[in-house]
Amino acid sequence: MAAGLGVKAAPFTYVAHALAVAAAVMVLVWCISFRGGLAFEADNKNLIFNYAAITIMLYESIVTRYCNKLDEYMVHPVLMLIGYIILGSEAIMIYKIFPKLNHDTTKLIHLILHAIAIVLGAVGIYCAFKFHNESGIANLYSLHSWLGIGTISLYGIQWIFGFVAFFYPGAAPHVRRGALPWHVLFGLFVYVLTLATAELGLLEKLTFLQSSGLDKYGAEAFLVNFTGLVVALFGAAVVVAAVAPAHVEEPEGYAPIPVN
Amino acid sequence: MAAGLGVKAAPFTYVAHALAVAAAVMVLVWCISFRGGLAFEADNKNLIFNYAAITIMLYESIVTRYCNKLDEYMVHPVLMLIGYIILGSEAIMIYKIFPKLNHDTTKLIHLILHAIAIVLGAVGIYCAFKFHNESGIANLYSLHSWLGIGTISLYGIQWIFGFVAFFYPGAAPHVRRGALPWHVLFGLFVYVLTLATAELGLLEKLTFLQSSGLDKYGAEAFLVNFTGLVVALFGAAVVVAAVAPAHVEEPEGYAPIPVN
Repeated sequence: MAAGLGVKAAPFTYVAHALAVAAAVMVLVWCISFRGGLAFEADNKNLIFNYAAITIMLYESIVTRYCNKLDEYMVHPVLMLIGYIILGSEAIMIYKIFPKLNHDTTKLIHLILHAIAIVLGAVGIYCAFKFHNESGIANLYSLHSWLGIGTISLYGIQWIFGFVAFFYPGAAPHVRRGALPWHVLFGLFVYVLTLATAELGLLEKLTFLQSSGLDKYGAEAFLVNFTGLVVALFGAAVVVAAVAPAHVEEPEGYAPIPVN
Repeated sequence: MAAGLGVKAAPFTYVAHALAVAAAVMVLVWCISFRGGLAFEADNKNLIFNYAAITIMLYESIVTRYCNKLDEYMVHPVLMLIGYIILGSEAIMIYKIFPKLNHDTTKLIHLILHAIAIVLGAVGIYCAFKFHNESGIANLYSLHSWLGIGTISLYGIQWIFGFVAFFYPGAAPHVRRGALPWHVLFGLFVYVLTLATAELGLLEKLTFLQSSGLDKYGAEAFLVNFTGLVVALFGAAVVVAAVAPAHVEEPEGYAPIPVN
């Protein structure tokens, strides 16, 4: 279907990368400058627009966070978005990012990036459980948690199936040919569910904060909601990049438009 | 891409219909038997498994609801799921449900179903605002509301564009040919965003109820979460039905498998 769009995948990978950077910065600013501790609460508004301050703050905050093992909960959104979703998205797009690279190389990058994404996702989920257990919060009752556990399980099954069928030992050629479109389709289904889970997580956390008194129309609420919108657009760009062809043939009878 | 799956769309439309019925029943049971008023609170557990009782209850509840104009809020999920999402899904699948019907007829059904879906969706959104305003609840601060308003706006724009380009007055043939895959792609993007909005709405409402004391692992929580899962699977079936071909050609050199 997307092959009929008449455009190639590469521009969508550029858009996806720009949106990935935006989403990563937004979730870091949220978790570190809004949620990261008292030291960063004082001048939030300036920090959002002050890149030098954000860099210093990022470094200090990561050191503080991992050394003191404080506030595991807020490691969860960072690992899930940057580790799990963005790395997984890069894995999905890799064939379109480097269309001229040797196919075996891109396949190896594809499966390694997905493996790292799953591991970081699992650590991120561990952080959520750890935070819940240490704070006396119930586990696994929300749609976010259900979809999240279901999605990472399907993601792992998809990875194992892909490894066995397409990498080692590899299925017979006609099985691979038949299985590939299902691998793409099921992979994109799991990917879209992952994005939906992220949206649910952003909304859930913000709803908890707002029911504890956070301003419904404040800077933090808007930042988190806009992060949700950026993640949705990012996911759309990744899906189009995945289904659009790496190369588009000129239709017959059309002269290419001169560049200058 | 889905054309390479080697299966035709029809079976996915059957799966989608079964899931649509399941989701519709689930949201009705939720809104009527769990949320519908004191009269239905007494024997919830029996009602879930008692179809006769549900039918009577449905009738009584709809009469009570619309005559007394009580509890507008719970009309919102019913209209959004059954009116907006399920009717819109039927509109998307119509070309695959009736592949042998005259193309102009299916196109007319497609645009009429989408129009009804948008109107019912708009009424459903009106119910949410009305409920908020009469209960002193803030409007348009959540990701659910942002995505929802954005999605129905894009849906309307898509409808107007489709009407003008493909129905009346209709664009030039080469423009239509070029625009059709974008119509499908953008339509599916809006559709998936609509599903994501529904998931956010289910989670948001349940989170509010749970923060007011509803059992996190109770029957109602499980019903709403499972409704979310069914809606996700339903959406996947609709998307596959939309992109899979109506007919699949036998690959060359393959004898068809005998039926008996």
